[in-house]
Amino acid sequence: MLPPLHLDPQAGEPLYRQLYRQLRELIVAGVLQRGERIPPTRELAGLLGVNRATVAAAYELLEQEGLIRGHVGRGSFVAGGPPAGGGLDWEKRLGPSGMETRSWGAGARISFVSARPEDALLPVEEFRQSCAEVLDSGEAARLLQLGSPYGYGPLREWLLGQARAEGAAKAGDDVVVTSGCQQALDLLERVMVRPGEAVVVEDPVYPGLRDVFVRGGARVIGIPVGRGGIDLAALARTLEREPVAAVAVTPNFQNPTGETMDLESRRELLRLALRAGAAVIENDIYGALRYSGEDLPPLKRLDEAGLVILVRSFSKLAMPGLRVGWVVAPRAVARRLAECKQTADLHSDHLSQAVLLRFAASGRLEAHRRRLLEAGRVRLASVLEACAKHLPPGSQHTRPEGGANLWVRLPEPLDAERLLVRAEEAGVSYLPGRLFAVQRPETGGLRLTFAGLAPERIEEGMEILGRIFRAEWRKQRASLEAGLAPAIV
Amino acid sequence: MLPPLHLDPQAGEPLYRQLYRQLRELIVAGVLQRGERIPPTRELAGLLGVNRATVAAAYELLEQEGLIRGHVGRGSFVAGGPPAGGGLDWEKRLGPSGMETRSWGAGARISFVSARPEDALLPVEEFRQSCAEVLDSGEAARLLQLGSPYGYGPLREWLLGQARAEGAAKAGDDVVVTSGCQQALDLLERVMVRPGEAVVVEDPVYPGLRDVFVRGGARVIGIPVGRGGIDLAALARTLEREPVAAVAVTPNFQNPTGETMDLESRRELLRLALRAGAAVIENDIYGALRYSGEDLPPLKRLDEAGLVILVRSFSKLAMPGLRVGWVVAPRAVARRLAECKQTADLHSDHLSQAVLLRFAASGRLEAHRRRLLEAGRVRLASVLEACAKHLPPGSQHTRPEGGANLWVRLPEPLDAERLLVRAEEAGVSYLPGRLFAVQRPETGGLRLTFAGLAPERIEEGMEILGRIFRAEWRKQRASLEAGLAPAIV
Repeated sequence: MLPPLHLDPQAGEPLYRQLYRQLRELIVAGVLQRGERIPPTRELAGLLGVNRATVAAAYELLEQEGLIRGHVGRGSFVAGGPPAGGGLDWEKRLGPSGMETRSWGAGARISFVSARPEDALLPVEEFRQSCAEVLDSGEAARLLQLGSPYGYGPLREWLLGQARAEGAAKAGDDVVVTSGCQQALDLLERVMVRPGEAVVVEDPVYPGLRDVFVRGGARVIGIPVGRGGIDLAALARTLEREPVAAVAVTPNFQNPTGETMDLESRRELLRLALRAGAAVIENDIYGALRYSGEDLPPLKRLDEAGLVILVRSFSKLAMPGLRVGWVVAPRAVARRLAECKQTADLHSDHLSQAVLLRFAASGRLEAHRRRLLEAGRVRLASVLEACAKHLPPGSQHTRPEGGANLWVRLPEPLDAERLLVRAEEAGVSYLPGRLFAVQRPETGGLRLTFAGLAPERIEEGMEILGRIFRAEWRKQRASLEAGLAPAIV
Repeated sequence: MLPPLHLDPQAGEPLYRQLYRQLRELIVAGVLQRGERIPPTRELAGLLGVNRATVAAAYELLEQEGLIRGHVGRGSFVAGGPPAGGGLDWEKRLGPSGMETRSWGAGARISFVSARPEDALLPVEEFRQSCAEVLDSGEAARLLQLGSPYGYGPLREWLLGQARAEGAAKAGDDVVVTSGCQQALDLLERVMVRPGEAVVVEDPVYPGLRDVFVRGGARVIGIPVGRGGIDLAALARTLEREPVAAVAVTPNFQNPTGETMDLESRRELLRLALRAGAAVIENDIYGALRYSGEDLPPLKRLDEAGLVILVRSFSKLAMPGLRVGWVVAPRAVARRLAECKQTADLHSDHLSQAVLLRFAASGRLEAHRRRLLEAGRVRLASVLEACAKHLPPGSQHTRPEGGANLWVRLPEPLDAERLLVRAEEAGVSYLPGRLFAVQRPETGGLRLTFAGLAPERIEEGMEILGRIFRAEWRKQRASLEAGLAPAIV
């Protein structure tokens, strides 16, 4: 079946090009698979409300590329592209692909899937200004040359100065600039964890963090996240039972739960890690986005033993498409990260490093952060209010004080992933708990990302979700009370 | 001992800051190690020809950071920074660091080490224009949002179109944008090669290519590079003897030798690889820089069996500091690369992708390439002439038709790495063969990178090198003729 397509008559690009690109993307990404039928031009034109010639023009381009093939009277089929002429069978050679082919939340009218900010909250003008200043600054030629795997010197110095001022970098620490937090995690995995070694992560957790360690061949152990973050008693038992190379935690507004560790938990985590000789990877990408309550010191600041490696990024604050993150780590670690980075991609992009430095050092970042805090506060209040109002009885949800995400646990036997089908039919999307599971899939769990939605949309979306969840809950309860097996939904 | 420092009174930055930064870098990079003595302020001031207060100010900053410590009457020492308070011993835990601590060619007056273009050959104005156009284009907001691991849509489409037009992309192929060629190689290693599997590379070879496969745990087999590129007879023997996951070759202007494979060799390589079921990684970063002779088709175009994965980049053409490369590969490979890239760093930087697309699609890239070809032709002629004029009898050197590098083999028993000490004393630097070796260190081998030097500097540098090499050659010959053991130099 064809996933939803979205043509925008207002866009500069002709409709047939838009359609061509979207279909092409689906075929290339494997969402539409080889042999699959695609609708005849007349049918798709009707479906999309466009002229039949538009669809025909798009199909023609796809045929020219060999991506689809038409059969008179039978419509068109995805032709894909097997290796020509008896060459390598790549699919067989490379083994199964692990990527989710589904594009979560795409096309939903109200999407609780991504924290992608509304355009009005993007610092586009500040970005333009910062770029212009960088280009006028006489630094332009230097940016075009190759640089250090540690990062662009002026940015690195600035970041180290900031971390020192905050007490998050000590005398023995250094900074390595990475291509976003994701690369920081990947490099840390490659440098610190040997295949088969154990790594502790929170459960549920951001899939990009879990997958880094899984791909690297680590034994990934999930420790439940409850009120106040990672379950320290469970962590203590694990650390006593077996050697662990690293514990990766997100003390502030954890993704997906939104939970935050209090000061005493932070101290206790460090004691446990020190006793076990485990390194601590502190993922702090949401830390600067606290909407209520008091700022807590990062683990890195509390750490007296040089255990903690702090990972941060500009992504959640400003410009995710500019891939700049950084690590504050003991010098020996920083040096290995820089070595590994040199093999991985030489160094991070200079232009974006310089632009983000300008953006930050000029005070624009802080001004923008204050706008985000303002917007975040209102959105958080909306989502909390809407949860209380609309979720079915027996639901639980977290109460984040910052960040972008909130976690809902629907009452048994509701299944968040099954219910998603209905939610999407009604134009609302979220991510089911399964995607975040390490060892404990929560059937009723789901993540609501509220940071990218205006308060009215949050209320509207939650109203719709609440209606669907409550209807199912009533149905299930009625079945249970009638002594019947729950219906398959 | 303190490596050479370079203070520039013309730079905007105060001298004490320059000194501080350079010393800091040396300490952080481990070039200056913990406990090492650094000169007293008076001594260093004399050495550098600056005021003593300048040095004192730099030292003060370093002391504040805990990087050095002063002892009255004994000068200052590097204090480095061990993990505080009995915590983790990172050095022990992480094992020995593999990075060359030496900064090759730094500080030489005439450096045959890096292809770093002279500022006059950097397209700074075109870069500014392309940036400005991107920022004005209405794309700005889109660039700030997260994007696809396959790359920025419009760039990817443009690259695929170019590759199609050239016959380098077939119906079953796709493009993945990477953070430079280096990341393309790293992702290919991670996707295609399991630990212990064999990978064939040229010997000598660009260390960044060799190291990607070594780090990934592959068994790296070097096949000699002779006149006309990789030795196909030796390759055939290896492929018959054992299974090989991939053969990585640079058919155009190989780094470090500058050798180019002719058309028949390209076809033969494909036949050999197909028979052995080995994938071919075609590293083509210099291909667009041919100064003489006729363009040859990339392996990817000759490949009928879907064996070849083509790796290209903008780096050597234009803006190495903007990290954008790409892979043209069968769709199944492209998909795994995109998956791996998503875990590695989500996607490449948007801003640089958009700027480079603008730079290329506007025709500025091609105009700039023509300037580079002009400059390259003159430089290549200079270095060939200077080699003929200045190298000692019995020397051999390659005759590249493009790219940036030329390979010299000094006559036995000359040792290029030992002679480098003398060359650097005379202000000239190059890279000794050892750095490029896979299994066959060539004592007399050295790489001359000529693309970054004006013709007069090439002649001047080669004159100096020739003098040093010939003097040593005469001395060695005299010793041999006298029946004495060669002197240790």
